[in-house]
Amino acid sequence: MRPQIVLFGDSITEQSFRSGGWGAALADNYSRKADVLVRGYGGYNTRWALFLLHHIFPMGSAMPLVAATIFFGANDAALLGGTGERQHVPVEEYKENLRRIVQHLKNSSPTVLVVLITPPPIDEHGRLEYARSLYGDKATKFPERTNEMTAVYAKQCVELAKELGLPSINLWSKMQETEGWQKKFLSDGLHLTADGNAVVHEEVVKVFNEAGLSAPKMPYDFPHHSAIDGKNSEKAFHNLCPGA
Amino acid sequence: MRPQIVLFGDSITEQSFRSGGWGAALADNYSRKADVLVRGYGGYNTRWALFLLHHIFPMGSAMPLVAATIFFGANDAALLGGTGERQHVPVEEYKENLRRIVQHLKNSSPTVLVVLITPPPIDEHGRLEYARSLYGDKATKFPERTNEMTAVYAKQCVELAKELGLPSINLWSKMQETEGWQKKFLSDGLHLTADGNAVVHEEVVKVFNEAGLSAPKMPYDFPHHSAIDGKNSEKAFHNLCPGA
Repeated sequence: MRPQIVLFGDSITEQSFRSGGWGAALADNYSRKADVLVRGYGGYNTRWALFLLHHIFPMGSAMPLVAATIFFGANDAALLGGTGERQHVPVEEYKENLRRIVQHLKNSSPTVLVVLITPPPIDEHGRLEYARSLYGDKATKFPERTNEMTAVYAKQCVELAKELGLPSINLWSKMQETEGWQKKFLSDGLHLTADGNAVVHEEVVKVFNEAGLSAPKMPYDFPHHSAIDGKNSEKAFHNLCPGA
Repeated sequence: MRPQIVLFGDSITEQSFRSGGWGAALADNYSRKADVLVRGYGGYNTRWALFLLHHIFPMGSAMPLVAATIFFGANDAALLGGTGERQHVPVEEYKENLRRIVQHLKNSSPTVLVVLITPPPIDEHGRLEYARSLYGDKATKFPERTNEMTAVYAKQCVELAKELGLPSINLWSKMQETEGWQKKFLSDGLHLTADGNAVVHEEVVKVFNEAGLSAPKMPYDFPHHSAIDGKNSEKAFHNLCPGA
């Protein structure tokens, strides 16, 4: 059975197979080696993610899960009193929800590599601009997410990873190392541009490689075409697939 | 179990999850509805594809396969006497190999939608230019594939689809309807540019829609976030997932 890599998260995961997306790039890397499955739920926070958990990762399933990225927090960190209040989850609960997600994954697939990813930074100006582009003068003048509040969630995400001995990607910090991150990496102050997707892709590949899940080092499922003798093709396949 | 759509083919399928690729675009369309799995084997012809068939689509598998694209022929049509001679498969055998692939799919998954895709047209000048960019003066001066020969394979592919009552995409014809197809759709005289990928994507979506596998009409796996009551989230999930 081909190994599976599941990307579990909110809209930033759901959109990861759009042109230039980090999920598609990962699927390309693991082509002929592992299947990359998108389980991204736009607008979801960790509280709602818990309802999906046992359905997406059923106990006792034969699913050959080798790795999962858990990428929530952008919606949990929506401010109370803002237009995203409905999505808000207190930071303590966010951390405990992430812990329950990890525990379930480890229970259902004991050898799975779990990688926690923090929400990206927030460009508050970009968010307000985006709201104005949608709603004109009726747009809210108050930020519904702030970079400062998202930092609090990112910190708890990284701390939980340390507590549990898991790798993590501090996207909130990483992106802000680059000047002009606001427009370079974010399309609407929150979601990712092609450059922003490239950052996530690069970081996930780095973490996977460090954990021994390097795509270039994994074997191909079947012979490379150049190893097939045009006049005696059976030979190449007979060795690898006795049942063929 | 989430439905699966498998893309089975040669390098044009293998590369379909690169940026702007038709496979990734399809995975994005079917996000939260079906998994799109890439089974692309660069350099492979239909003769070699037969060796993989029972491994990729095992009989009696619980795989919930709803659709498969079969996209071979670009290598089968490589000319005898050219640098791709090793990959050449006579056109009669190409057609019979495709038939065996379809029959196996129908045997293993009786309700599966099988779509045959012809090879794209060949820009012979683009192929020679590409060889020169790789090998300079040592590059072959003779085409290893011709547009005329590829047409013969495309025709048999479409005829087989008619015989078997399957939908097909005549990419060879379709692409040549657009002026400047040589550079607009092909990056090296054979493989696809982003525009070429968009043509394949559009045609596959059209065929899937006509066959009743329209992504917009398929239900979401879980509630849209806007349907979740922030103060009583259990309600949205209790209705859909009694076991949650």
